[in-house]
Amino acid sequence: MTPRVKEILGWYGADNPGTLANLARLMNHGRLAGTGKLVILPVDQGFEHGPARSFAPNPAGYDPRYHFELAIEAGCNAYAAPLGFLEAAARDYAGDIPLILKLNNSDSLGTDRDPIQAVTGSVADALRLGCAAIGFTIYPGSARQYEMFDQISALAEEAKRAGLAVVIWSYPRGSALSKEGETAIDVVSYAAHIAAQLGAHIIKVKLPTDYIEQAEAKKVYLEKQIPIATLADRVRHVVQSSFGGRRIVIFSGGAASSDDKIFDEIRAIETAGGFGSIIGRNSFQRSKADALKLLSQVMDIYAGK
Amino acid sequence: MTPRVKEILGWYGADNPGTLANLARLMNHGRLAGTGKLVILPVDQGFEHGPARSFAPNPAGYDPRYHFELAIEAGCNAYAAPLGFLEAAARDYAGDIPLILKLNNSDSLGTDRDPIQAVTGSVADALRLGCAAIGFTIYPGSARQYEMFDQISALAEEAKRAGLAVVIWSYPRGSALSKEGETAIDVVSYAAHIAAQLGAHIIKVKLPTDYIEQAEAKKVYLEKQIPIATLADRVRHVVQSSFGGRRIVIFSGGAASSDDKIFDEIRAIETAGGFGSIIGRNSFQRSKADALKLLSQVMDIYAGK
Amino acid sequence: MTPRVKEILGWYGADNPGTLANLARLMNHGRLAGTGKLVILPVDQGFEHGPARSFAPNPAGYDPRYHFELAIEAGCNAYAAPLGFLEAAARDYAGDIPLILKLNNSDSLGTDRDPIQAVTGSVADALRLGCAAIGFTIYPGSARQYEMFDQISALAEEAKRAGLAVVIWSYPRGSALSKEGETAIDVVSYAAHIAAQLGAHIIKVKLPTDYIEQAEAKKVYLEKQIPIATLADRVRHVVQSSFGGRRIVIFSGGAASSDDKIFDEIRAIETAGGFGSIIGRNSFQRSKADALKLLSQVMDIYAGK
Amino acid sequence: MTPRVKEILGWYGADNPGTLANLARLMNHGRLAGTGKLVILPVDQGFEHGPARSFAPNPAGYDPRYHFELAIEAGCNAYAAPLGFLEAAARDYAGDIPLILKLNNSDSLGTDRDPIQAVTGSVADALRLGCAAIGFTIYPGSARQYEMFDQISALAEEAKRAGLAVVIWSYPRGSALSKEGETAIDVVSYAAHIAAQLGAHIIKVKLPTDYIEQAEAKKVYLEKQIPIATLADRVRHVVQSSFGGRRIVIFSGGAASSDDKIFDEIRAIETAGGFGSIIGRNSFQRSKADALKLLSQVMDIYAGK
Amino acid sequence: MTPRVKEILGWYGADNPGTLANLARLMNHGRLAGTGKLVILPVDQGFEHGPARSFAPNPAGYDPRYHFELAIEAGCNAYAAPLGFLEAAARDYAGDIPLILKLNNSDSLGTDRDPIQAVTGSVADALRLGCAAIGFTIYPGSARQYEMFDQISALAEEAKRAGLAVVIWSYPRGSALSKEGETAIDVVSYAAHIAAQLGAHIIKVKLPTDYIEQAEAKKVYLEKQIPIATLADRVRHVVQSSFGGRRIVIFSGGAASSDDKIFDEIRAIETAGGFGSIIGRNSFQRSKADALKLLSQVMDIYAGK
Repeated sequence: MTPRVKEILGWYGADNPGTLANLARLMNHGRLAGTGKLVILPVDQGFEHGPARSFAPNPAGYDPRYHFELAIEAGCNAYAAPLGFLEAAARDYAGDIPLILKLNNSDSLGTDRDPIQAVTGSVADALRLGCAAIGFTIYPGSARQYEMFDQISALAEEAKRAGLAVVIWSYPRGSALSKEGETAIDVVSYAAHIAAQLGAHIIKVKLPTDYIEQAEAKKVYLEKQIPIATLADRVRHVVQSSFGGRRIVIFSGGAASSDDKIFDEIRAIETAGGFGSIIGRNSFQRSKADALKLLSQVMDIYAGK
Repeated sequence: MTPRVKEILGWYGADNPGTLANLARLMNHGRLAGTGKLVILPVDQGFEHGPARSFAPNPAGYDPRYHFELAIEAGCNAYAAPLGFLEAAARDYAGDIPLILKLNNSDSLGTDRDPIQAVTGSVADALRLGCAAIGFTIYPGSARQYEMFDQISALAEEAKRAGLAVVIWSYPRGSALSKEGETAIDVVSYAAHIAAQLGAHIIKVKLPTDYIEQAEAKKVYLEKQIPIATLADRVRHVVQSSFGGRRIVIFSGGAASSDDKIFDEIRAIETAGGFGSIIGRNSFQRSKADALKLLSQVMDIYAGK
Repeated sequence: MTPRVKEILGWYGADNPGTLANLARLMNHGRLAGTGKLVILPVDQGFEHGPARSFAPNPAGYDPRYHFELAIEAGCNAYAAPLGFLEAAARDYAGDIPLILKLNNSDSLGTDRDPIQAVTGSVADALRLGCAAIGFTIYPGSARQYEMFDQISALAEEAKRAGLAVVIWSYPRGSALSKEGETAIDVVSYAAHIAAQLGAHIIKVKLPTDYIEQAEAKKVYLEKQIPIATLADRVRHVVQSSFGGRRIVIFSGGAASSDDKIFDEIRAIETAGGFGSIIGRNSFQRSKADALKLLSQVMDIYAGK
Repeated sequence: MTPRVKEILGWYGADNPGTLANLARLMNHGRLAGTGKLVILPVDQGFEHGPARSFAPNPAGYDPRYHFELAIEAGCNAYAAPLGFLEAAARDYAGDIPLILKLNNSDSLGTDRDPIQAVTGSVADALRLGCAAIGFTIYPGSARQYEMFDQISALAEEAKRAGLAVVIWSYPRGSALSKEGETAIDVVSYAAHIAAQLGAHIIKVKLPTDYIEQAEAKKVYLEKQIPIATLADRVRHVVQSSFGGRRIVIFSGGAASSDDKIFDEIRAIETAGGFGSIIGRNSFQRSKADALKLLSQVMDIYAGK
Repeated sequence: MTPRVKEILGWYGADNPGTLANLARLMNHGRLAGTGKLVILPVDQGFEHGPARSFAPNPAGYDPRYHFELAIEAGCNAYAAPLGFLEAAARDYAGDIPLILKLNNSDSLGTDRDPIQAVTGSVADALRLGCAAIGFTIYPGSARQYEMFDQISALAEEAKRAGLAVVIWSYPRGSALSKEGETAIDVVSYAAHIAAQLGAHIIKVKLPTDYIEQAEAKKVYLEKQIPIATLADRVRHVVQSSFGGRRIVIFSGGAASSDDKIFDEIRAIETAGGFGSIIGRNSFQRSKADALKLLSQVMDIYAGK
């Protein structure tokens, strides 16, 4: 147990030893073991965008075993997926990598007003599949946001009682927000704070822009001259908004962009005290060799190489 | 236990021995026992379209015992029906054929906006009736789709704990989809993938057309040149979309068409690695002799004869 | 135990001995004991239409004891009523007549869009009051029909586990149906079939007219030349639609008409293999002497006299 | 135990000895003990109309102890109030007077479409506070009436199992009724009947006018010449509508009117076989001396003095 | 135990010793221990207004430990916060200060029609975190007010059974009220009364203005000449409305105003028999030294210095 991991575990004083052990498993696995940094492979794209859009670019990904292997070979800290994908191979790779069961999911076949997700798994499912954590998406700003807060509050209590860790994907969305506002710095840092208040051990947000959505917030950002000009500034602000840096916050990059742009982002996250990345499409939608190379370079940055 | 059945069971590593035994019962019963292929008789038409429309063409079908006998004599792998039909004769044919209790059902007396089905049975009902599996319909694309996902997720967890298998009928439908889109190749393969992610052991979809519904998907189908020209191509794509072929996917034909057309479809399914058919109206709406002949020919194709 | 009652019990192979014993109690009580025919007295009119409209024609009926006595003296097979009416006298007549607790009820004070009923009793209530069965109304065709199907499915499972029988009042109603369609032959036989599929032991429907409501159904009735010209034809079709005659189906007459018309209807039901009648307003809204006479004549017809 | 109280208890044959003992406590307490008549003090006005409108006329009433003392000194049969008011002094006056916990309440700060009340207490609360009964308001005619029927049905079952009595305040209200119709004789007697059917031991309604709201009912009132001209006629009809007089029905007077009018009303109730009164604002909104005098005169009338 | 604390505990005769002990803990902690006065630090602003708007004015407040320390050093009676903030440091300061877990929370990212809050914690959470009380916000006047009343009624019952105290934040809000009406004297005193009736041990309201919102109430205020001219008058009226002064009522000041204005308000509360203050933004949004000074001056006033 490295001092850094010990330090981070020290932030979670309300948790039982079971949950701390699972948080430790997440931080002590893979190439970044012991650094307090995390690179997680999430594969819920099939549910969210459909199989062809997700896996046709690299057809090996149709097979649920592929993603376990990718995550293991790359030395990721964990692999996160919906129920079906985990059920399909959890026995084959039992003990090989920490798993996160994504408990709610959405698809893109329906209409998107009042966005919410379906609850597609349970804490009992996570336990029987040997997971280290549950994952859950909230949409702060949606007309149905409080339903999701109610759900994760109940699930988190149950998960913590069972010794699991809780990962919240906090994605602002809904009719009360502009499209640009979904990644605005004030909104993303607010979303991170909400996830922390809801009891998340690990918070996942999108990288924020320097746009400010809410007039009331804008006044404070200007008056207090909160630095948000660079991506590192903004990551630092999100981390600060997550209990003064005492919660693990990781970032996603969204749709595929150039690798160089990804590395720049990772460097900004690393510099600013972010805790890591969750990299889905950019890893499983290219060949395994290419994905391993990409993830290796990302981890190099987080490892300070 | 044939090697093929063993192989298929190997895909379901997350299940307990009880569920595996029931999956094996389904695959090891009837004329196709041991082949890994399934022909299932479903009779929920009475609920869905009313008794006269369903059974007047062959009035023997008003009697619930008829369908048990048809399924048994034809050597089907299983018989699927709503609560009442199973209650009415399960004792008489106990042990003679694996049963699937359809846990939700709809009728055609109400209006169809926001399509959903009524929950008309429970896992406890399936157990007391000696069933091997529960069946459940979802309508991906419906405004109420997530309610159905919530329901089947909870029911599937309970069924698996009790050692039952889970069969999901995945029928895209709803105001977000065009009529043609309900059987579009992108939508049907997406529906199969969703059922797999929800934890289905066996997935039932309609045979897809070569129409592509969603613009975002169309780009990928064209760019990656996914073959969808022939029915066999499309079945292959649906099977691939169901965890790279590691989930049992069976197909329904819908309303009665000519027998030759049915056989052509079965041949395409067989050629392309589909796992079988679920044949309702085309079997119970003709005389038993004719139905037995039809089912025999279908099974011949699946048996490679 | 007569052969006929034994035969009928044989149709309910999925039930436990407790439920079979209660079904037998219903069939072996009163003047029609052992015939397999049933005449049941239902008194939920006070709830449905108010006390004055229900009982002013025969004020003795304001007293809940009156209906027990009427049912007992007339030799009815059972007495069905809401919670309050049964609570008020169940101890006084304990063991004197099988009781059916009507678990949902409606009034005519509110508006009637989206018709549903209130759940006003429980299986536990039925057990503590010594009932043989629960009763429940569904409105196939209502926008809220699936809520009612969900409710009765859960209640029926609980009732059967507790050894009670299940009686479903299946009354098509709702914005998707025309007023004439509520008693159309296709709709009534469909409603009977739905009740059977929901697991009813005894189904209660209204006597159907020869009107056909649904276009899709009309095609089949014409093409298959299903006889619906006479009332006996239609009763026969409804009985056939209820699992080929293997479910007990009884009929109600609705508002008061002439006694001769009632007897004609009873004769048609008897001739066509119907299982009996549920006669409310036509019995309790006249003097007891007149009611006993009417019921006696009705039972004479069912007894083949 | 007087013969009259014994007689009344005899009407509740479905109840366990615990509930009968609590009904007996209600009838055997205070100045009217043993007469079968009841005068109950209800104080839910603070919740319903706010503290100033309720208690400024007699500021002693701000203190929850005042109402216990008023009820005790006046010799009322029981004191009914929401959770907070009972919690505030139940220990101080434990055993001094039977208590009724009002389980639902409304305020006048919100809008009143679809009237319903909030559930603000439980059967467990009633038990821990030493209550003899639960109280519950229904609004027959409201678009949400069946929700309230569902609620009280479940609560009443639980209360009866726990040996408590059930008091239902049945107040017709809602968009389906005219303002005048809320106290129409047909509607009030219907409301009393519904409460009885829902299993109430004690029913509370408003004094009805001679207006008839519903056309269908009007026909019967005219045809059967039901007497409704005098208040005594109407009370007699309401009592008859409550299971032929075999349920305890008490009446409220509503907002303050002249004392002489109150006494006239009480005389009509007494003459016509009503079981008593529930007198709130007219007692606690005047000085204690005046209130004791009023209640004494009311009880004199009920005691036949 | 001072006589004053004993006296106050005497008002809560319905509570078990566990709850009384926790109420005593709240009153016997900090600088005002034993006086019966309370100054509580609440920090739910991060959830309600976002992290930057809440903590940028004093960035030390991003760290959840800061607020525990501020409350402890200032000698507050208790510290109230949402789940995340308490989880983050409850172990570090276990036993150092009584805690109140705020069980519901809202954010300002969504739209505000039909205001309600999300339930973000449970009684079990409060117990595992060692809290003395639960906190809950209601919005009397909101179209969803009864949902919140239902929720707190159930939570309060559970909390009291577990020996916790119950604090209700009662904030009138909703389409039925004008903006000015939210702090009107009639509405605020009504809101305090509702909280008391719902079973609150401690009630938190905003300081009221002399505006009167409701016409029906206005008549009574004028006729009975209820004094509301000065702030002290109004505090006195709110205290009286809370069970004649037999419930603990504390006040919040809202957004930052001048310190002198705060002290004037505190003096008015103290003079009029109010029980204390809950001071959030005015304390944690300035430097700790300044906050300690402010809170010290406030406590001086309550301590009668």
